[in-house]
Amino acid sequence: MRALWLENRRLALRDDVPLPSPPPGEALVRVVRAGICNTDLELTRGYYPFTGILGHEFVGVVEREGGPEPLVGRRVVGEINAVCGRCPACASGRRTHCERRTVLGIVGRHGAFAEYLVLPAENLHAVPDGVSTDAAVFTEPLAAALEIQEQVPIRAGDRVLVVGDGKLGQLVAQTLALTGCALLAVGRHDAKLALLAGRGIATGRGDAVAPRGFDVAVECTGNPEGFAVAQRALRPRGTLVLKSTYAGALTLDASAVVVNEQTLVGSRCGPFAPALRLLAEARVAVEPLIHARYPLGDALQAFEHAQRPGALKVMLEMG
Amino acid sequence: MRALWLENRRLALRDDVPLPSPPPGEALVRVVRAGICNTDLELTRGYYPFTGILGHEFVGVVEREGGPEPLVGRRVVGEINAVCGRCPACASGRRTHCERRTVLGIVGRHGAFAEYLVLPAENLHAVPDGVSTDAAVFTEPLAAALEIQEQVPIRAGDRVLVVGDGKLGQLVAQTLALTGCALLAVGRHDAKLALLAGRGIATGRGDAVAPRGFDVAVECTGNPEGFAVAQRALRPRGTLVLKSTYAGALTLDASAVVVNEQTLVGSRCGPFAPALRLLAEARVAVEPLIHARYPLGDALQAFEHAQRPGALKVMLEMG
Repeated sequence: MRALWLENRRLALRDDVPLPSPPPGEALVRVVRAGICNTDLELTRGYYPFTGILGHEFVGVVEREGGPEPLVGRRVVGEINAVCGRCPACASGRRTHCERRTVLGIVGRHGAFAEYLVLPAENLHAVPDGVSTDAAVFTEPLAAALEIQEQVPIRAGDRVLVVGDGKLGQLVAQTLALTGCALLAVGRHDAKLALLAGRGIATGRGDAVAPRGFDVAVECTGNPEGFAVAQRALRPRGTLVLKSTYAGALTLDASAVVVNEQTLVGSRCGPFAPALRLLAEARVAVEPLIHARYPLGDALQAFEHAQRPGALKVMLEMG
Repeated sequence: MRALWLENRRLALRDDVPLPSPPPGEALVRVVRAGICNTDLELTRGYYPFTGILGHEFVGVVEREGGPEPLVGRRVVGEINAVCGRCPACASGRRTHCERRTVLGIVGRHGAFAEYLVLPAENLHAVPDGVSTDAAVFTEPLAAALEIQEQVPIRAGDRVLVVGDGKLGQLVAQTLALTGCALLAVGRHDAKLALLAGRGIATGRGDAVAPRGFDVAVECTGNPEGFAVAQRALRPRGTLVLKSTYAGALTLDASAVVVNEQTLVGSRCGPFAPALRLLAEARVAVEPLIHARYPLGDALQAFEHAQRPGALKVMLEMG
């Protein structure tokens, strides 16, 4: 089959990749559409030494399920962590932290930028009929945005800052706005901030944020400048959520953390069911975030596009 | 009066410091005994640009109280943050984070390494009769140790690691042991670890700590190696408490924070009342931590002693 292959930090479109054969408990999924995420871009820069098919945001149709098959022929999205179910992390209910996990297109498992993929059947969620395939591609990053609220209770009276107006910042701001909190989103791109303003979200520039004025700040830029904006904005005993993966080390003012008793919380994958619910109820607007579409055969151009300044979501269409 | 004065990172014993005159609401306290803390040592290295009398761990006797005077003639300890009571932080119940605070011997207020000090009367706590003056000098750092439990609920089933066997690590480990948690304290000094072992606390070396084996890790060393030991020891979604002030910037593996969804919590000053209660009930042993005593006139030698490898608490005696 055709697939976008990463090896030694080089991407290549290949037509000779064998069709995957699902082991017991796993399903064969024909990929229909997939989204390019910043983590994919980081992987091409060596964030993690991955060799194989990239891609973890997708919508597909189940071809074979390998057990009772209620999902065969259905549109599905899939949780990206394939877990053992038996290690201490799994037994403690922290399945996304499974010690033996593979992660779709990231760790030890081929991903979604291909004609077919396999995932454990338990990872799949049917896409509700009212949710477009375009919108459903956003289920995974939307779930990641919702993980913030799994970790940090957001109260309606809280002052919350989102730093970063990119793909993830857009989803984080939209989901936080639903809590009724006093929200400000800051970024560097007028067009991206306008998207948020169009959803009724207050927007601004990072360098104009009042110091010590926020109960919670969410860092969605993945760069040290964004972290500094978020840290400076926090009130004493405030909470800073780290939502982006960082390719390098982060140097931080640890004394400010101690003296101001700040809390830093790392945040990764989140729950799919509420993400699909928000999409079905049209409480978030994800389709305006699509900037371009490419057929899988033009995946290299799609990656170039996704790295342009100002680019939001770039989609790959498989068939 | 006589006092130990810090200016341009140089300590000097002075005999010409004017006796302080308490403003309304503040009390004049004759200092009886004081302890040298790592923060004092950091201040002499430029951690914060302070000029004046150092010292914030003390026991004194109230000479004048400036209002109704129930504490005159009593032995007291004092909370070190003098607050305005009206700023947003004070109004939100975060008084130790008052935006206009002064801090005894640290920020904008002369400290305790002197014959007399002044503090707001509301900051003073009478020392119970059964608590020795030596023990009461530990009230402030013991309160700081208890602040951990104000911020992070410690469950009896939790696996908790304390990194650092110094003055603060000793108090942190002793207070955490009272929760019934599964505690391990690691450090580099056999004699200090033996003190903890004598209290029934399991001890070891930082480089032998099982990775990902702890729910909570408390960093009490203030150096990057200690931070790395603590971070590596945390299970996914575990909590790392930063208890030490760091003189420099800290470079951390932010990707590990995000991927493992770690929580980092800065922790500073804590509650005096439970600290005095633990001392009165003899639930912690602080006097074995005293390594040396010097009269105020030998304060410079006392500071040299406090900086020796392996030194624990060095006391100054005023009268």
